[in-house]
Parts: sequence; C-alpha cells; structure tokens
Amino acid sequence: MWSPAGLPRAALLAVAAAAAALAVAAVAAWRRPRPLREVLFFPSRPCCLEALLAEAAAPGAPALPCPCPLPRAETSLSRLVRRLLSARRSLDLCIFAFSCPQLARAVQLLHRRGVRVRLVTDAQYMGLHGSQIGRLRHAGIQVRHDQHSGFMHHKFAIVDRRMLITGSLNWTTQAIQSNRENVLVVDDAACVKPFLDEFERIWEEYNPTNYVFPKVSN
Amino acid sequence: MWSPAGLPRAALLAVAAAAAALAVAAVAAWRRPRPLREVLFFPSRPCCLEALLAEAAAPGAPALPCPCPLPRAETSLSRLVRRLLSARRSLDLCIFAFSCPQLARAVQLLHRRGVRVRLVTDAQYMGLHGSQIGRLRHAGIQVRHDQHSGFMHHKFAIVDRRMLITGSLNWTTQAIQSNRENVLVVDDAACVKPFLDEFERIWEEYNPTNYVFPKVSN
Repeated sequence: MWSPAGLPRAALLAVAAAAAALAVAAVAAWRRPRPLREVLFFPSRPCCLEALLAEAAAPGAPALPCPCPLPRAETSLSRLVRRLLSARRSLDLCIFAFSCPQLARAVQLLHRRGVRVRLVTDAQYMGLHGSQIGRLRHAGIQVRHDQHSGFMHHKFAIVDRRMLITGSLNWTTQAIQSNRENVLVVDDAACVKPFLDEFERIWEEYNPTNYVFPKVSN
Repeated sequence: MWSPAGLPRAALLAVAAAAAALAVAAVAAWRRPRPLREVLFFPSRPCCLEALLAEAAAPGAPALPCPCPLPRAETSLSRLVRRLLSARRSLDLCIFAFSCPQLARAVQLLHRRGVRVRLVTDAQYMGLHGSQIGRLRHAGIQVRHDQHSGFMHHKFAIVDRRMLITGSLNWTTQAIQSNRENVLVVDDAACVKPFLDEFERIWEEYNPTNYVFPKVSN
C-alpha cells in the first residue's frame, strides 16, 4: 500500500517549499485592502458641514463653532463630501445639474488645495437659476460643456483616477433633500477605467476650440 | 547550521498536507466565476431588437426576418435588454421616467414568461405623454408610485435578486438615443444588497393602502 511516509525526503522538501510560497501568497491576499463598496441613499437629512469643510481647509486648526441650528450628523451628504475631500491629486467631474452650494464649496476647496479639478456639465442646465457653474469658473476651475440638443446627463466624479462616485443624484439641493436617489462609491479598476476613458473622451470633445458660434452679420 | 533536511519526516508530512489544502483552496478561488462588471455608455446607436426579443419570447423558434432598416448590431441598448432578459425569477424596477417602447416590451415579455416583475415609478412622470406605465399596468404588472413632491429619481433594476443595473439612464428613447448616459451592471452582494433593501423599503412605503386621496364633498 502507498504511504506518503515512503516518499523521498527531497520530494517532501519541495512540497514544503511550495506550501510556504502558497502561504505567503495567501497572507498577501488576506492583507490586501478590501475593495471599496459604499452605497448612499437620498434624501439626506439636513446637516451642518462646517466642521468637515473647515478641517479639510486647514487640517488640525481649531474649528470655530458653527452658529447654525443643523446637527453635525453623519448623513449621506456628509459621506459624499468626505469622499470628495479625500482627493489629493485630481477630481474629474461630469455633472448634469450642479446647484448645491455645499458641494460647490467642497470642489472650490480642493481646487485651492492644488487638486486638479476638471468639470464637464450640460450647456442647457449650467445657466439655470442657482447653478454653481459660474462661481466655480470664477474661482478658476476649468469647465467644459456640450453644444448638443441631447443632455450631458452623467452624474459622476472620479477621485485621484481611482475612486468612482456615480449614481442618479444630480448635485442640487432639491435632489439631496427631497428626492429618492442613489450614489455608488467603488474603486475597482474594471468600473473606474471605463468612466475615466469616457471622461477623457468628453473632455476632448467639449474642448472650447471645437465650440461653434453663430456668425454675426455686420 | 540549520537545515530543513534535518526536520523530522512527520513535520514535513504535516507541511505537505497544509500545502495540499492551500492548493485546493487556490484552485477553488481560481475557478470561482469572475465578478460581473459591465459599463454601458449612451447615446446608443439605433438598432433592431426584434431577433433578440423573438428569441427570448420563443427560444429556438425560427426568427422571422424584420423588415425594418435598422442594423442588428450589438449596442449599449441591446446589451441592456439582454441583461434584463436574463431574468428567470424576478425583476425589481425603480425607474423615474419610463417611455421607451422596446424596454417596455422586454419587461412585458418577462412578465408573460412568469418572472415576478415589480415596478416603482414617479407619480409626476408616470402620466407624461409617451409613458409606458399604463401599458405595463394593463398587461398585469404591479406598479407602485410615490405621493411626494420630491421625485422618485432612481433608475435601477435588480435581476433575480443578484444582478444590479444602475446609472444615470432614464428609460426613455430620448435618453437612449440622444443623451450622454451611463449604466453599470454588477453582481457583487455588497452593491446589490443595499439596493435590494432600498427597493423593499420603497415597495412597502408606496403600498396603495398608504395612498392618501383627496376628500370628495357631496
């Protein structure tokens, strides 16, 4: 009858070495950061974001107490803002409707901090009452828009080219406070890469050198 | 000097057994189906879906040639329809605006095939010109809607409680053919479960027994 005890010592040593290699690989896989999967639902309870924005603007500085009556709770909006504020190098935005002042402040803050912010939006919605696009442009942020009859209806953000924030949520106070909405935050490359490619495609297509202006007659 | 060759045979055998167990686990992990990550972008080229719908309605039956001039190409719309038609047991839909006749046909087809279809939509958009909600209700599909001033703005589908289809795309021909839109198809539980829970929450909240009707004076 066959018995492993009868195997030559060299074979057992080889198997032991393979086991060690597999164990190292298993530990490495176990220690790998877990993939990011966060789902946020709206409407979000109103909350005060002052402490969050102040900490991001001047890390470690003593926060001034905010006199507003809103709670400093953790909400879907505060989680979304926290994800955006985690940007260190770049923030690529494709936002159909952008009128939420708090999100505009977060984006401006990143721009001031040296993060490369690029923003694509919809030509028809960027001029509506309450739009934050003018304010962001005034702050020096690069903005491009379509010139089509169809809408640039995406609502996604890519943080540092590795985290995708996407869903049904337009960046408006109405959507955040009143609508049923979802936002998904993921970091796996199979999701992020196609959105990055789509962003770069749109960014080039909406280059102002491609804009067409109506001819003015003398 | 220490030498592995000096280890007792029993220790080497134990290590070899551990190696075998790790190898079995590694093979199992390798054979596990890869997670589903599909990203669809719109606008989608117009295409003929007749063959796809006919095959889903009567698998294996000879397809009648369609006289329409549209190509039978693989497009973002055909891929979306294919994912929906893969449903075998259930289809849970949360769709803000639903006016695309082709997507309505796919949903009706699943209903006829015995798939349990539940549809949540927005009260203000369900009555708009071209809406498919009446047709779907007429076909016997359960539909529930909000009664709020805010929008039920989700646009997601869950197939067989294990595949999530979500994004910016409303199910309208305008959005499919003219807008810049995205749809993400994923199957990992960390994404699907929260959406399933959200669907069940909304389904219960929008139960018609909770609807409030204006009082009629005599």
